[in-house]
Amino acid sequence: MAKVADKPFFPKPFLVFFVLSIIFGFGITLSEAGFPKIRHYKWEVEYMFWSPDCVENIVMGINGQFPGPTIRANAGDMVVVELTNKLHTEGVVIHWHGILQRGTPWADGTASISQCAINPGETFTYRFVVDKAGTYFYHGHLGMQRSAGLYGSLIVDPQEGTSEPFHYDEEINLLLSDWWHQSVHKQEVGLSSKPMRWIGEPQSILINGRGQFDCSIAAKYKNGLKQCELSGKEQCAPFILHVHPKKIYRIRIASTTALASLNFAIGNHKLLVVEADGNYVQPFSTSDIDIYSGESYSVLITTDQNPSENYWVSIGVRARLPKTPPGLTVLNYLPNSVSKLPISPPPETPDWEDFDRSKNFTFRIFAAMGSPKPPVRYNRRLFLLNTQNRINGFMKWAINNVSLALPPTPYLAAMKFRLSTAFNQNPPPETFPIDYDINNPPRNPETATGNGVYKFNMGETVDVILQNANMLNANTSEIHPWHLHGHDFWVLGYGEGKFSAAEDGRKLNLKNPPLRNTVVIFPYGWTAIRFVADNPGVWAFHCHIEPHLHMGMGVIFAEGVHKVGMIPPNAMACGSTAMIKNYPRKP
Amino acid sequence: MAKVADKPFFPKPFLVFFVLSIIFGFGITLSEAGFPKIRHYKWEVEYMFWSPDCVENIVMGINGQFPGPTIRANAGDMVVVELTNKLHTEGVVIHWHGILQRGTPWADGTASISQCAINPGETFTYRFVVDKAGTYFYHGHLGMQRSAGLYGSLIVDPQEGTSEPFHYDEEINLLLSDWWHQSVHKQEVGLSSKPMRWIGEPQSILINGRGQFDCSIAAKYKNGLKQCELSGKEQCAPFILHVHPKKIYRIRIASTTALASLNFAIGNHKLLVVEADGNYVQPFSTSDIDIYSGESYSVLITTDQNPSENYWVSIGVRARLPKTPPGLTVLNYLPNSVSKLPISPPPETPDWEDFDRSKNFTFRIFAAMGSPKPPVRYNRRLFLLNTQNRINGFMKWAINNVSLALPPTPYLAAMKFRLSTAFNQNPPPETFPIDYDINNPPRNPETATGNGVYKFNMGETVDVILQNANMLNANTSEIHPWHLHGHDFWVLGYGEGKFSAAEDGRKLNLKNPPLRNTVVIFPYGWTAIRFVADNPGVWAFHCHIEPHLHMGMGVIFAEGVHKVGMIPPNAMACGSTAMIKNYPRKP
Repeated sequence: MAKVADKPFFPKPFLVFFVLSIIFGFGITLSEAGFPKIRHYKWEVEYMFWSPDCVENIVMGINGQFPGPTIRANAGDMVVVELTNKLHTEGVVIHWHGILQRGTPWADGTASISQCAINPGETFTYRFVVDKAGTYFYHGHLGMQRSAGLYGSLIVDPQEGTSEPFHYDEEINLLLSDWWHQSVHKQEVGLSSKPMRWIGEPQSILINGRGQFDCSIAAKYKNGLKQCELSGKEQCAPFILHVHPKKIYRIRIASTTALASLNFAIGNHKLLVVEADGNYVQPFSTSDIDIYSGESYSVLITTDQNPSENYWVSIGVRARLPKTPPGLTVLNYLPNSVSKLPISPPPETPDWEDFDRSKNFTFRIFAAMGSPKPPVRYNRRLFLLNTQNRINGFMKWAINNVSLALPPTPYLAAMKFRLSTAFNQNPPPETFPIDYDINNPPRNPETATGNGVYKFNMGETVDVILQNANMLNANTSEIHPWHLHGHDFWVLGYGEGKFSAAEDGRKLNLKNPPLRNTVVIFPYGWTAIRFVADNPGVWAFHCHIEPHLHMGMGVIFAEGVHKVGMIPPNAMACGSTAMIKNYPRKP
Repeated sequence: MAKVADKPFFPKPFLVFFVLSIIFGFGITLSEAGFPKIRHYKWEVEYMFWSPDCVENIVMGINGQFPGPTIRANAGDMVVVELTNKLHTEGVVIHWHGILQRGTPWADGTASISQCAINPGETFTYRFVVDKAGTYFYHGHLGMQRSAGLYGSLIVDPQEGTSEPFHYDEEINLLLSDWWHQSVHKQEVGLSSKPMRWIGEPQSILINGRGQFDCSIAAKYKNGLKQCELSGKEQCAPFILHVHPKKIYRIRIASTTALASLNFAIGNHKLLVVEADGNYVQPFSTSDIDIYSGESYSVLITTDQNPSENYWVSIGVRARLPKTPPGLTVLNYLPNSVSKLPISPPPETPDWEDFDRSKNFTFRIFAAMGSPKPPVRYNRRLFLLNTQNRINGFMKWAINNVSLALPPTPYLAAMKFRLSTAFNQNPPPETFPIDYDINNPPRNPETATGNGVYKFNMGETVDVILQNANMLNANTSEIHPWHLHGHDFWVLGYGEGKFSAAEDGRKLNLKNPPLRNTVVIFPYGWTAIRFVADNPGVWAFHCHIEPHLHMGMGVIFAEGVHKVGMIPPNAMACGSTAMIKNYPRKP
């Protein structure tokens, strides 16, 4: 049983009203009145046999489900997840991707950063407020447990009594992922080996945890793959999008891929983009969307096509030479039979290296009218150079020539309790050499690991210029989707080549930049973001490609840690934090 | 670099001598004088690609080696192992199998019992005295990490200046194990699934971590398998026993198998058994030995055969229908070439179900003259019934109808600090119903998990009657090798059927019972052991078949916990122990 109860909870302003309700017998429940609730879940994480793509494997499931149960709440609600680790030897944490964790930085679910991993047999309770409607998800944030299947959806509706700024009749929720047949433990060993063994392209694209390996539900239109024979009851049977004609559907799409950049399209249907990463955007229409790992979108579709037909939903790989067949499913116009194949082939995924097309899509995303605007000036600007490097022959990724190696003691408690030996007290470099040639492999590819922290003053406006560069091999530069914890940021602009403060700095969009929590850097390009460091805590900022993070592609931000409240003792039962004397612990 | 230094260390009695040495310039080092030393090791545990049986897989290695480095010390030395966990998501502990840990029960290396698992990135220092010469080994004791390859040898020579009670010229050390191609993570999921999926028989038998899958080095004599083509430099090339003619060799043999009961034989050579589990036995000659998981032996061989030939060493499976080819290697009489094949086929492993033959071997083991004798009376006697059971359709093993489920808080600290909620304070039953029918499947196979402790008074003499029984299927009963931590015990006897205190109790051997730390129960039989509960600590007593322990086949013993000294804080940074206030912890 995933969900235990929806209990109302009582922030102080409501208490008076609550008491009055009782006294005067208003005869309504608090939830009817649109009051915040507690959404209470009891979860157990364990490995289980599962066939996500018709090939049996082990996945990390929650309460016997893969993907994990969907959390659904209203803005302002408190989500409480009692997470019990039923793994035999592995720790576990869960990150609530896109949730800002204001006042609860210890609930961000990042091992070594916000908390100690939950040990086998132990329970940790995540409590946090979901303060903004939107399409979110959750996932493991230790080792490569996201790749192992530890993820699920987190949907926040507007506060009860209020509504979205667009109309739709029904909604459909899609969580996209990629899947490998090799165990994540082997993947991790490969990435840490000399020479490095790359994980390769995924075997399958999963839609709500369902894909088909070595067969296709559209074999009729494809060469080489045989038709899948599925009754619909299999764990790998496609998740069908059932719709009624002449309606408007909101399709929520989130990507928790380990690696793949995806493109989403529905045959014959235009997509109206209305939300990105839990923020409303200026609506625009498109035939397909690109979605990178860590991003989410809502698109509206109108089921105004020939109602006697069904239509393909196609999700293909972009930005890397695809070796994975597209994830496919069907937009099923009811009452047609699901088994009625669409009359045309599935939409073709655009060419993987047509980055102009990707940019064209990305550059169309602007904040909806009335969205918060960025401060006009920054107090501090970091330039973060993304490079592929080596350490004694081991392959790494580094930021300003520092490859992140997380320490065993979580930063949050280490900083609050000034455990100065827990990590390097010197912050990493804020920029890179002005003459660095981003168009060629690093002249000296050797790097070093580090675990220093970029510390911001509370309330400071921070700009980060993410600078892409050539990889170790000549003429290669890859896409990286960067995700920031604890904040949304404004995306002020993108550009080609090296960022020039003099030229590019003047062209940044301060008028209607979209707020996001994940943003991509294109090959050989830069991306500029701005955020206000006003959320006390320690926050990861990293490439959301899981093996890249595993190889060091991230940095640590911190602000206002002295204002952080009482960290739950069992978030700090590891490393040096376990040795703190006299911390109020209960036996 | 496995071994850091051999430093002398100074128990108080030696300090005076040490000071005198300096003053008078005795001009000898302490080690020359036969003083105890510190044997200092720095180890890192990590997964690595390896081909134990010519098939590449990942193994849990130490400092890049598989099996882990051999520890070698003299009786009385202190072994110090600084163990760093370089795994990404898993905890780790190491148990020093056969070492009594007097005064250091927190160093026994059992997760949930003696300590918290060491978290990724953290270091725990094991410090313990090896007080008795003998053939030991070490291995992981969390989940199924032993099956994953986390093991190595631990050899204790007599105190310097003293000698073994038998003569030999050279020695050879063999650590035997079994190996599966399926990952231990999948194995664990299978064992915990409904219906249970059994791990099956191992793919290979390994000798010092080396075996050959799908080929044989003795293909000439075997049907069905092709000849292995090996240069000798492969990770899976056999470990050759190089010997000179006309010498006496001590061969140390320890078995850390996950499952397999083994039989060891050398073509044309008799084995003189002189040691079992670190205790001298009355020497006896045999053509082959049976060795169960958790046991160790030393045998002497004389290289008195035709010196122009080489001879087979053959290690086959007993007590279960073998589906694994024997582990093979060569006793190489120098200066013959290793590649000169023996002229006869490898010794045939005796029929797997010839239990009479196994008993015949086992019953020949008696303590060497001058060995400590057991107290003539016991203060307390436990009867432990071994049964296969079910819990809601999950397959389990249970002792007196309790299937052991280890709690997240380690017992040792939980008992010392009286954390009464950490485990069930009611001890499990000390016996089983007198009318239990051991010859048939359990009438009610349903059982329950438990985590209670058998508590003994300090100094109490304890008898345990291990009673085997029929499994869930009719007419089946299996061998189980039981291993006791923290103690050697006297093996007072074995018998068929149900133990009768009146009859069997009078026939127990109190004259020369062998001291051991592991003992087998035969199908439908009983085994009686005796030990003195004089080692303050909490000690596991369990079936050494790793999947059986995983399924609950063990019990917890405790004695004199109030006398246990200062538990290292980082042995108790988990579960309720992490919440103890005011424990002297250093930030």
